[in-house]
Amino acid sequence: MTDRFATPQDVEDTFYEAFEAHDLEAMMTVWADAEDIVCIQPMSPIFQGLADIRRIWGQVFSHDQRPEIMVHHRQWLENEGLAVHIVEEQISLPGIPQRPPPVIATNVYRREPDGWRMVLHHVSPPPPPRQPGLQPLQGI
Amino acid sequence: MTDRFATPQDVEDTFYEAFEAHDLEAMMTVWADAEDIVCIQPMSPIFQGLADIRRIWGQVFSHDQRPEIMVHHRQWLENEGLAVHIVEEQISLPGIPQRPPPVIATNVYRREPDGWRMVLHHVSPPPPPRQPGLQPLQGI
Repeated sequence: MTDRFATPQDVEDTFYEAFEAHDLEAMMTVWADAEDIVCIQPMSPIFQGLADIRRIWGQVFSHDQRPEIMVHHRQWLENEGLAVHIVEEQISLPGIPQRPPPVIATNVYRREPDGWRMVLHHVSPPPPPRQPGLQPLQGI
Repeated sequence: MTDRFATPQDVEDTFYEAFEAHDLEAMMTVWADAEDIVCIQPMSPIFQGLADIRRIWGQVFSHDQRPEIMVHHRQWLENEGLAVHIVEEQISLPGIPQRPPPVIATNVYRREPDGWRMVLHHVSPPPPPRQPGLQPLQGI
């Protein structure tokens, strides 16, 4: 039997496909079956473990509008057991011509006994508009 | 010669000590000497590479107020070459009795030829006050 996800990128592709399709079962296949998995949404507390992560994605997917998501890789840090992908997500909603600025995500994947799985999705809100260059901000 | 930082936690301790002390040279010792290092501040674009990261910390440390930082570990994902620490940072400033809500950080460390170093510091702003439970937010 071959692994469900042979590479971190396979997991990432399925993650964003499930996100676009609002497919909760597909979304849950990408996460490791473990209690140490973590999802950090913009301006949100930490969600930890399979039950919380299923609950939050179920809430997201209960909305009618399915987004289109363009993913731009900014950096990869990988070894044989862990992979860290830093990406920008450009999210568009149908019927809304203006595209919001991209959000920044750190996605971490781990090699499990049956292939790679997601263990962390940490998303930051985008910079405010007309940002006046480098400014120190609370909590750097 | 022993490694400068024998464990990821050694790097993390020095990172927060340098942050509290506003010590730029100590701060730069924790980062890997590599162009793939990344720093993502709250509501900020991505800073990448040693020069940008030195510049942004220099700006932070140019302010008079040195913070006190309490770090609470939420999750560790580690193997022999990479370590991902998800933490809450409780930052206090002198003379300000109110403590802001903690920010959430993903810190990634990598085993380099001469010991562990930081390769990613990704900080999210805290949830807004009086958060009404789980709410789907843009860009999850």
